Amino acid sequence: MAENEFVQEIADIKSDFPQWYTDVVLKTEMADYGPVKGTMVMRPYGYAVWENIQSEMDRRIKATGAKNTYFPIFIPYSFLAKEADHVEGFAPEVAVVTYAGGEELSEKLVVRPTSETIICNMFAKWVQSYRDLPMMINQWCNVVRWEKTTRPFLRTSEFLWQEGHTLHATPEEAEEETLRMLEVYREFSENVLAIPMFVGRKSEKEKFAGADATYSIEAMMQDGKSLQAGTSHNLGQNFSKAFNIKFLDKDGTHKFCYQTSWGTSTRLMGALIMVHGDQRGLVLPPKVAPYQVVIVPIAAKKAGVMEWVTKAKQTLEAAGIRVYLDDRDQTPGWKFNEWEMKGVPLRIEFGPKDLENNNLTMFRRDKNEKFTAPISSDLPAQISSILTEIQQYMLEKARAFRDSHIRVCYNHEDLVNAVNEGNFVKAMWCGDRECEEKLKSDTAITTRNMPADQTPFSDTCACCGKKLDKGEGKVIYFAKAY
Amino acid sequence: MAENEFVQEIADIKSDFPQWYTDVVLKTEMADYGPVKGTMVMRPYGYAVWENIQSEMDRRIKATGAKNTYFPIFIPYSFLAKEADHVEGFAPEVAVVTYAGGEELSEKLVVRPTSETIICNMFAKWVQSYRDLPMMINQWCNVVRWEKTTRPFLRTSEFLWQEGHTLHATPEEAEEETLRMLEVYREFSENVLAIPMFVGRKSEKEKFAGADATYSIEAMMQDGKSLQAGTSHNLGQNFSKAFNIKFLDKDGTHKFCYQTSWGTSTRLMGALIMVHGDQRGLVLPPKVAPYQVVIVPIAAKKAGVMEWVTKAKQTLEAAGIRVYLDDRDQTPGWKFNEWEMKGVPLRIEFGPKDLENNNLTMFRRDKNEKFTAPISSDLPAQISSILTEIQQYMLEKARAFRDSHIRVCYNHEDLVNAVNEGNFVKAMWCGDRECEEKLKSDTAITTRNMPADQTPFSDTCACCGKKLDKGEGKVIYFAKAY
Repeated sequence: MAENEFVQEIADIKSDFPQWYTDVVLKTEMADYGPVKGTMVMRPYGYAVWENIQSEMDRRIKATGAKNTYFPIFIPYSFLAKEADHVEGFAPEVAVVTYAGGEELSEKLVVRPTSETIICNMFAKWVQSYRDLPMMINQWCNVVRWEKTTRPFLRTSEFLWQEGHTLHATPEEAEEETLRMLEVYREFSENVLAIPMFVGRKSEKEKFAGADATYSIEAMMQDGKSLQAGTSHNLGQNFSKAFNIKFLDKDGTHKFCYQTSWGTSTRLMGALIMVHGDQRGLVLPPKVAPYQVVIVPIAAKKAGVMEWVTKAKQTLEAAGIRVYLDDRDQTPGWKFNEWEMKGVPLRIEFGPKDLENNNLTMFRRDKNEKFTAPISSDLPAQISSILTEIQQYMLEKARAFRDSHIRVCYNHEDLVNAVNEGNFVKAMWCGDRECEEKLKSDTAITTRNMPADQTPFSDTCACCGKKLDKGEGKVIYFAKAY
Repeated sequence: MAENEFVQEIADIKSDFPQWYTDVVLKTEMADYGPVKGTMVMRPYGYAVWENIQSEMDRRIKATGAKNTYFPIFIPYSFLAKEADHVEGFAPEVAVVTYAGGEELSEKLVVRPTSETIICNMFAKWVQSYRDLPMMINQWCNVVRWEKTTRPFLRTSEFLWQEGHTLHATPEEAEEETLRMLEVYREFSENVLAIPMFVGRKSEKEKFAGADATYSIEAMMQDGKSLQAGTSHNLGQNFSKAFNIKFLDKDGTHKFCYQTSWGTSTRLMGALIMVHGDQRGLVLPPKVAPYQVVIVPIAAKKAGVMEWVTKAKQTLEAAGIRVYLDDRDQTPGWKFNEWEMKGVPLRIEFGPKDLENNNLTMFRRDKNEKFTAPISSDLPAQISSILTEIQQYMLEKARAFRDSHIRVCYNHEDLVNAVNEGNFVKAMWCGDRECEEKLKSDTAITTRNMPADQTPFSDTCACCGKKLDKGEGKVIYFAKAY
């Protein structure tokens, strides 16, 4: 294979971003298409990224006090129907088991699209008193939502996620928990994925089916489109009333619990690819890269080279750095291309000259820059420090891109033009569902979310032109979305 | 709640082992029944044990070179039918999705009972050359097998497991891999779960649907019954021929791959409970216990007590020991009972007298023994050392129980009597399927597995009395099984 063949096979990122995405996903072996339409196989390289995401996210979730559990995948169809908005939202996209063990089932089973209903069914049994609250659980599992149009990681019939579910005694505690998890997701995205997020509340139209309020983190892809990457819902008493989840309060009366749920999924993988990738392929932040460092020996048969790289690998691994020593029978150039495509943050090329000069020749994938440095007596510290710089730089770069693609608009024409040019638009909005729906059907532009800072900066809805009375308008972001 | 109320609620382990098991599972909050028949909810305490199992097992699997992946849960019905034995074995117990997204599906989808077929479908696409071999993958996922009679952890319609799948160039390598994983399972069971295993090959009747050979690890429960706790299959070329998985060998010809698969599941949780538990409830090995140590302050309001226990907790946690400081508003006796029922390996009771005497009062759950020791200047080392002793003692105890419940038998009557008295029977067996089937239908006794050491010790089949020619008989274990 010629040295640049890999990269030549990837579509142009500027002119065909969707094909670029698909090429990167398949050629880096992150994922492959499954045999059933809309399904995906996560291959070892992609799954290793997901494992790193899981491990970082799981630690944060547990730190809030939530504990992991596992609930059955099959939900009796009648459960779904107990909460009116919920069934309306999910019924059209569920997969249904109608027979099992050779027999027609007396009640059809829904393959979970989300687990609120089955979890509420158990919560009703487990919660008795205020002493049982808050009840905070999480699960990592697969869910199924039958979609017409699918793309690996972004929208697949089956995907992997974590879903947290909590019960509280008061509405204040539920809102606090909803916002706490939103903040966990934001912090995780910035510090682990190196992705700055738009954080805010969804419109009534875009909220979760069955929630009082939904908050989201949204990331800007390199084509200016938004990817909703995580949501946190304040469910109020909607499900607790439908499932009769009551507790005996300190005052001796029975009350319905206040509830939240929150989730992030393998969509985060899509965000990683589309925020950081470039023409050569993936660019992975060190915190989630399967290999943080790849070592490529140069003139490997020359005395001392293999000894040094082998020892370096062991030293780095012992310090907890994920490193791959690429001693395969291929040219260095071939290896450079493969690992660049696969987005390994740092490459060490090590040959006789480096040995002689006590130098490291390195390549940073984030900047696509080769550089040299004297070998430190503390190699793990030296490498860790570069990885930290890469992690930091990737976040800054993504933030600079994002900040340069936000436009503040005051009228419909500017709003539509700015979004079509690849921007997010920050604008004042009337909040009417019809306004939002008309915009979407005319232009495919949607409301994303409403940031915490709601200081008004115009008295006109930028979308429909309606005059806004004091306190009536909402600050919101508009964008096209995946 | 009275101090012994917990324990009084657990059925007698000697006279009603099945009810004892159910009581322990439910009362310790390891699991609860799901709303759909045959399903189970893994609650936080049970799931935490499973997470420890996963973490230890995953590390071992990765050390063999296998990498984690994720394949879709839905398998086209036609895939199942490609391997004749496989479809015969699994078709009666699959759950089937017939409509999704509001439409009848043109091809019905099987909810995976195991993933050989869908993985083979992808392997056929991924494998080209001998350079791609061995290909070794694993996945942690849920599987569904519709069962008539179910019990939490032992047999549930849905369960969690890991399934490994590997491809090799030669039959020797496939057999080597099959046995390597069997050994990983044995070592894991002994060193992590503290359960000694019967390791061997299954009979033709009992092997996996589609395998050339199946090997298992089997554990002896306290009622003398066997629990098959893990299996490793040599699939030969059965699936590679059905799915056309070929590679170009070094000699320039295309050949079908040789294949293995191997798995362990949440059944391991059932084994843990039934091997180690006692009348008070769970007894958990330190390596998988959610809390390895619980600290119960005595006379917590006396000066210095809370200070000491809080500091001890921090010191132990910093050393990686899983510890719970129980400062809830309950009596010490109530707490002792709860944590004994939940099987926490070591309890530290700490009060003013301990502070005064610089002593630790401790309780070992494995021996149900209280003891005291001077507080070491290196508390984590002191506690770790006790935990190691507990882990060791639990294995020895289980091994002694097992060894004292093995009988060597030479005829049918002795065999049946010995098994009915709660033993495993080691015997010479003719190997005929009819012999095995008759025994099972008459007595519910089954063949478990054939150990590696096949030195014959009789020339008669202990089951049917048939005379065995030289080299014809098999050394095998008989037992009743879960």
